[in-house]
Order: sequence, then C-alpha cells, then structure tokens
Amino acid sequence: MYIGVDLGGTNIGVGLVDEKGKIVYKGEIPTGVGRPFEEIIGDMAKLIQDVIEESDYKQEDLKAIGIGSTGLPDNKKGTIVLASNLGWENAPIRDELHKYFDLPIHLDNDGNTAGLAEAVAGACQGAENSITLTLGTGIGAGIIINGKPYSGAHSVGAELGHLIIHVDGIQCTCGNKGCWERYASATALISEGKKAAKNHSDSLIYQLVDRNLDRITAKTVIDAAKKGDVTALKLFDNYIYYLAMGIITIINSFDPAIIAIGGGVAGAGDFLFDALKKKVKEHIFYKEAPYAEITQAVLGNDAGIIGAAMLGKL
Amino acid sequence: MYIGVDLGGTNIGVGLVDEKGKIVYKGEIPTGVGRPFEEIIGDMAKLIQDVIEESDYKQEDLKAIGIGSTGLPDNKKGTIVLASNLGWENAPIRDELHKYFDLPIHLDNDGNTAGLAEAVAGACQGAENSITLTLGTGIGAGIIINGKPYSGAHSVGAELGHLIIHVDGIQCTCGNKGCWERYASATALISEGKKAAKNHSDSLIYQLVDRNLDRITAKTVIDAAKKGDVTALKLFDNYIYYLAMGIITIINSFDPAIIAIGGGVAGAGDFLFDALKKKVKEHIFYKEAPYAEITQAVLGNDAGIIGAAMLGKL
Repeated sequence: MYIGVDLGGTNIGVGLVDEKGKIVYKGEIPTGVGRPFEEIIGDMAKLIQDVIEESDYKQEDLKAIGIGSTGLPDNKKGTIVLASNLGWENAPIRDELHKYFDLPIHLDNDGNTAGLAEAVAGACQGAENSITLTLGTGIGAGIIINGKPYSGAHSVGAELGHLIIHVDGIQCTCGNKGCWERYASATALISEGKKAAKNHSDSLIYQLVDRNLDRITAKTVIDAAKKGDVTALKLFDNYIYYLAMGIITIINSFDPAIIAIGGGVAGAGDFLFDALKKKVKEHIFYKEAPYAEITQAVLGNDAGIIGAAMLGKL
Repeated sequence: MYIGVDLGGTNIGVGLVDEKGKIVYKGEIPTGVGRPFEEIIGDMAKLIQDVIEESDYKQEDLKAIGIGSTGLPDNKKGTIVLASNLGWENAPIRDELHKYFDLPIHLDNDGNTAGLAEAVAGACQGAENSITLTLGTGIGAGIIINGKPYSGAHSVGAELGHLIIHVDGIQCTCGNKGCWERYASATALISEGKKAAKNHSDSLIYQLVDRNLDRITAKTVIDAAKKGDVTALKLFDNYIYYLAMGIITIINSFDPAIIAIGGGVAGAGDFLFDALKKKVKEHIFYKEAPYAEITQAVLGNDAGIIGAAMLGKL
C-alpha cells in the first residue's frame, strides 16, 4: 500500500492507495496557508496517520509516501524549491515529514502526479508516452515518457501552459506574452465570456447568470454555446482553435500516444471533445500518419492523490 | 565498428565510425533522385562496401548499419514512410539493404541522428537530456531523452520547427500558420534580408551582394549586422527574438540540460549566441532556477553519419 498526498494552496488531500492505483480510504484538511511550515506538515502527518488508522491498515503495510505538490518541488533535494501559493521557498518537506514516518518519501509537481495517475489507473492506461492536461486557472500538464513522469534536466519542464503560441500576444503572469494558458485555460474562457456578455446584453451568457457578470464560469459560456447562442458559439469556436493550436504543438514535439484533458472545462464532454478533435484533424502536420488519441481525463480530483501514491511504485 | 549512412535529397554520405563516434573513413555520392529505388539503394550498398574496403576493415568488423534519413523513417517497419524530397512512400529500405548486408539495420530521421551525434561525440556529451537544433531551410531537431533519440509514440515527434509560436502568423508549408521555422530558420532570415534590402537601398546588406538580391544569404545579413548596419541589426534583433521564443517554449516543455544549435546561421558564433542567451535570460520563466545551457553544435555535416552509426550502439 502507498500513501498519496495532494498538497495544494487550499487543501491537503491524503489517500491510502493500493498497487493498482485504487484509493482505499482518503481524507482532506484545509492547508491553512500562512501558518508556520512545521505546523502545516504536522497536520499533514496527523492526517496521514488518521487515514491509515481509519482504513484498518498499519504503518508496516506501507511501502512509501508520495507528495504531489503545487509549485516547484525538487525530488533530489527533498524540498519545495518555490511555491508562491504556499508562501514557501526551499521548504525541507522530506526531512520534516521524516520526523513522523520512517518511509521513503517521493516528491513531484501536481501536474506530473495527475499525469501519472491517468497513466496508471485512468485514461492513459497502456500508453508508454502520454500527456495529461488540466484546464483550470492555468493549464497544468503531466508528461509521461516510458511510463514515468518527465521533469527534464532541472525539474522545471512540463510547463506546457507556457508554450508560447502567440508571440506579442496577451501578457502572461510569467513575464512573457502569448502563453497558451492565456488563451486556452478556464480563466481565459471566463474572461472572454465576461467581455462578450458586457458587449452583447442579448447573449444567453448574460441571461444564464441573471446579468451578474461575476457569476460567469467556463460552464456558463459552454452551456450557452450548447444552446446555440451566437455570441457564446463564437467564443467557444475561438477557444477550441487556441486549444487545438497548443495540442498541435504538443503533437509536433512530444508525439504522445494519448492526450487526456481534465479540469472543469473538460466536463463539457463530447461537445468540447468532438469540436477539438475536428479542429486538430484539420491542422495536423502529417495527415496520413497516426497521431495522439485525444480523450477526457477520468480521475478528477482523485488524480492528485493516486499519482502521488504511485510515485512510490516507479 | 559501425556504418553510418546520411541519406539526403542531394547526397548520400557513408562513414565507418568507431565506438566513440569518431569517423575512421567516409565517402559521398549524389543521391540521384528520380532513379528507381533499388538503383539508389544499390549505389548506397556499393558506397558502404567501398568505405569498408578503403579503410582496411572487413564486413566481419561491423556490428550494425544505421541510416539517418530525410523524411519520415519508421524503424519498427524498416521503411521510409514518406520522404517528399526523395519521392518515396513506404520504401522498404531495410529489406532492400539486407540483400547486400547480413547486419542489423537501424533507421531514424536525420534530426535525431544529428542530435545523437552531438550527444555521443559533440556539444551535448555528458547530458542525459539534450536537444540539437539545425537552423537551415527549416529548423531540424533531435531530441535526446535518457541518452536515446526520442521520436514519440508514432515516430512523428521532434518536429520542433513546427512549434506554433504565432497563431495566425505567416503561412507554413505544413498547412498551419505561425510555425517557428517561418521565423527562425535560415530561410526566414534570408527572406527578411531580401525584403529589407529592396526597401533600404542604402543598407549594407544590399552593398555586400553588389545589389544582387538573389545572392543574399543568412551570412550576408549577419555580416552586415556585425558591421553595425542599422537595417541589418534590426532584422537580426527580430530574428534573435523569435529564435528565443521557440527556445523558451522548448525549455518550458522539455527542459533539456543542453540545447546545441547548428546550421549555417550558427556559424555566426558568439555574435549570435551572446545575443540569444541574453534574450532567453530576459524571458525565462523561473528566473532563479537553472535552465538549459545554450551552445553551438560542433560536428557540422559529419553529425548525420556519426549519429546514424551510433544508432547501432543504443
């Protein structure tokens, strides 16, 4: 059995996970950002102990603890190098957690753990090379090569949200212009939805939120598009175009067997995937050659815990 | 000892290469595109035999033959799936060459063989993960992951010249708009040089070619920029900017230890690399974290033969 920890800026999720990537028992607490590092790790350790106890297992049954973290974890050093939404720099998370558990502790970023989860127990099973994208505030990515998460030479790769797809385009938080996530994240769709609703008061987007712009989500825009609203359909088509352009870039560079897409936007199901696949097919380089299957990620929020746990199996 | 074959649309190069990637003896013939496939492979086989004989080795000394090919080779099937500049489709190159040699025959694309050569015996020695780019008619790329060429799940990856860096940008031959090589290949610099010379007859670019636009090469523009010509400097700055944006995208996705750059443009040496490194540093995502070393490829035209030969060592 393995423990998987999903460490985010809002919550800490912990699960006891079996060899096949199935969660046997899980729990969650608020991260409580702002408190001392030792206190947060102390709570994490308590939650791990609780999960073990309540699932009727013992520490002796465990092979390893894996942590999928927001920010920039460094598995070699055992630290979180940088995590802006935790307020941590060079946080010695492995040493701190070793005070509670005499077990191997593995680290990776939450993009890679989500990718590993889908590869072991989700939409990318059976593929040696796959990429899982999460369309949310930004675009998270987990790259699996030869069955293992790929983090590059300095553990700073897999930032596919920052593929530059439009030089001199929209300013990104990373300092550059035209990063993919400025066009194809949920945030991007929401932002375009708000602008459009403001300019087109007849749009269904505006009506679906009772004329309260702050309530517009990615789902609002997609729901309006599904119902044939002209304004929403235009936004949706643009969104699909930008999403496809990044995916073409991924196919032309990584050529994975499967690209799984999760996050709230992916919840639109066939409506989104049919349009996306059509657009990718139109723009693919080698029209005659096979290329990545594009499919919906299936593990949802559990992916973080499962993938973190599976770090112990690599 | 290994035989490396560099199969291009213009020439076929063959070399006898030792374990360390050193060429012991080499030869070259014109490809003679348009002739029957069997005739071209027959000439290739004869050249291989000549190279072995003239180097005082015997067929018994050979462990394998490796072929680095233009187009889309498929090592599993042993065929060249598609090579537009050879006019071949599903060409059974392994079976045909096996008529002459009872040796393992390995195939990969010429981008990957150039990358493997630099990794084994050139600028990327010692790095597990490296990428070699060749700035020429397009942008060729060889991706090395864990010491081996990476071609993805369908052998159609490594097309880094077709990273989309400018959606809705310049039309590319691949059908999409805004591919990296439309902005950062030698062809792109030549094209901009011609336009600029036409519009600025006082530019040194125009003078260096005695007002004959057809004679403008990438070196013309770079030489004029080196001498401080205002028009050329502007083109050069733009070129470096686009080159940097693609490299940032590569760092944000593959995070290699080393990026080696070859091809005629790279011959500009420090003038180009100093400007490029400065631009990349300005735009890098994680300012504090280490990232890829950017350096000049060192093996030149021999890279194709050396890398092809080293396929036999993998």
